[in-house]
Amino acid sequence: MTNDTPATTSLATDHPLIDGRTASAPLIEAAFGRTPTHTPVWFMRQAGRSLPEYRKAREGVGMLEACFSAEHVVEITMQPVRRYGVDAAILFSDIVVPLRAVGVDVDIVAGVGPVMGSPVRTRADVESIGELEPHMVSGVLDAIGTLTTELGGTPLIGFAGAPFTLASYLVEGGPSRDHVHTKTLMYSDPELWNDLLSRIASICSSFLSMQIEAGASAVQLFDSWVGALSLADYERYVRPHSARVLGDVAHYRVPRIHFGVVSGELLTSMGQAGADVVGVDFRVALDEAAKRVPGRSVQGNLDPAMLFSPWEVVAQRTREILAAGKSAPGHIFNLGHGVLPETDPDMLKKVTDLVHEETTS
Amino acid sequence: MTNDTPATTSLATDHPLIDGRTASAPLIEAAFGRTPTHTPVWFMRQAGRSLPEYRKAREGVGMLEACFSAEHVVEITMQPVRRYGVDAAILFSDIVVPLRAVGVDVDIVAGVGPVMGSPVRTRADVESIGELEPHMVSGVLDAIGTLTTELGGTPLIGFAGAPFTLASYLVEGGPSRDHVHTKTLMYSDPELWNDLLSRIASICSSFLSMQIEAGASAVQLFDSWVGALSLADYERYVRPHSARVLGDVAHYRVPRIHFGVVSGELLTSMGQAGADVVGVDFRVALDEAAKRVPGRSVQGNLDPAMLFSPWEVVAQRTREILAAGKSAPGHIFNLGHGVLPETDPDMLKKVTDLVHEETTS
Repeated sequence: MTNDTPATTSLATDHPLIDGRTASAPLIEAAFGRTPTHTPVWFMRQAGRSLPEYRKAREGVGMLEACFSAEHVVEITMQPVRRYGVDAAILFSDIVVPLRAVGVDVDIVAGVGPVMGSPVRTRADVESIGELEPHMVSGVLDAIGTLTTELGGTPLIGFAGAPFTLASYLVEGGPSRDHVHTKTLMYSDPELWNDLLSRIASICSSFLSMQIEAGASAVQLFDSWVGALSLADYERYVRPHSARVLGDVAHYRVPRIHFGVVSGELLTSMGQAGADVVGVDFRVALDEAAKRVPGRSVQGNLDPAMLFSPWEVVAQRTREILAAGKSAPGHIFNLGHGVLPETDPDMLKKVTDLVHEETTS
Repeated sequence: MTNDTPATTSLATDHPLIDGRTASAPLIEAAFGRTPTHTPVWFMRQAGRSLPEYRKAREGVGMLEACFSAEHVVEITMQPVRRYGVDAAILFSDIVVPLRAVGVDVDIVAGVGPVMGSPVRTRADVESIGELEPHMVSGVLDAIGTLTTELGGTPLIGFAGAPFTLASYLVEGGPSRDHVHTKTLMYSDPELWNDLLSRIASICSSFLSMQIEAGASAVQLFDSWVGALSLADYERYVRPHSARVLGDVAHYRVPRIHFGVVSGELLTSMGQAGADVVGVDFRVALDEAAKRVPGRSVQGNLDPAMLFSPWEVVAQRTREILAAGKSAPGHIFNLGHGVLPETDPDMLKKVTDLVHEETTS
């Protein structure tokens, strides 16, 4: 369980599954600490409720229904690429998609988030969680095949929730502020906890591998709730499982991005979990983050709440972030967290253009 | 606005208003980095929903109604002192009490939190916020008078919300996850922002001064939402106002505790705002925190979500925290955030006893 694979600066083209289509794309170059033609930019949750075309595509279609429908995944994933000219598409999905795929009774309730039919707290609950097989996510994999053709030289980022965050949803039965049930299981029955996280890690590894084999050029392991842990608990109960997932996909030699919210205290440790790129939330300046993850590229970190301020303020902060990002071997511009639903898409377009203008040599 | 008063290790007995009643209490000794007879312990939100006697006292009485009623404040403040034998009482109040006292249309909605009749966003809104006078909080001050008699040698900690957190409630109109309106005002109209925070800081200073003059032996400035800010924004837009409040009560020479949640990145800076004691949330180990606030005492930091685990687990973590707390000049044992409503009071009693047993020389 101590699969802390060191980051490598291997060539994406080394692996037969990667066809060179995106090997010199700015996102890939920046992720591996090489020199991109410009600083790549994409936005977490760029495909979502802030876009009128997204709201239209989702009319009358449930969130999970859309995530399993190849047609919806392709359309929604492409929307922000068309509109913004960002340097990567992020697969339209949700972190609970692979759980639902293996038969977990989970739905996404509007205004609430993922809600379980019943929480996972006993050994029997844990042992009922099976392995992920490709046929269970065929809609997703079909969509990726279509997307890689449509995207041409623009990378598609595959995506999975990290074991701790998924475990929190499973054990709490839904979103939680305090993670009481999750932490109680973790502290009081470490063996069952490890069994649960191992099963989830298997699912995450499989899902990311399938996405890469279907054509994803990079992956992001998203640990939304990891900031609820102290460093000691993270390293003891959680990192081994995240490291296993990142290690399991290392041989594909596609960039692995690892992101958590409120993760400042954990950044160094998260960097040691095997990611090539560490996503940084808006609370930690990128030059400080670069010190905490030596040798790794960084991704981030404009505060999504700042996008409601006048353009001059946003532009100044964008330039500051670009300057701070130069401290790292590579910088992928992004927000420090997901796009808020009320965001004006024009603001994201202007940020995208500014990043490109400021960094094209 | 740069009233960064350095912490002093002055004697609490220097000020005529402090009668020496609590000058050698463990909480005061630990706060000033002297040697207490044992490590003092209290719990944020020790007077609250986790106690059956609290739920009884609150039957049919609204939260703010209770906060302005001397009888309720005395009874509820005393309850955890009687039950646990903690080393301090914390005034039963709410951070919006002084706002309501100056006429702000705010109520506390069960299950939601503070909700404003209308948000504060324009110059006219800001200018409508007046100064706090003692008669507006006479119930609170009367309660403090009674409490100091009842408490004898046990200190009463007075309490106020910090300017940023209060501003967030005012500007958002209620609790917020993203603080979009607050940050938009802060970034787009710094002058109006500073006017707003100055008015709130005046109210906080007045409220803390009144509490000290009525008999509080220490004060805590509570910045619940400060973790929503980057260090640069905190120092530019917020710290001067917090420092002013802490500076305004410095001459009373009672310990000033400053606490924020998700504040790891800000600890050093918060320590420089003038507090004698920096409260540490559960995400940062106390030995690490002590490095970030040299010369200051620390308060914390057992994860409140841990109190649902078996006693051996809680006891071990409590001992670890006591050991880590030795790195600081003084350590006040507390949780890393407030007591959760579902907490078993017996667990808090056992933690209190263990801290006393382990540290009594």
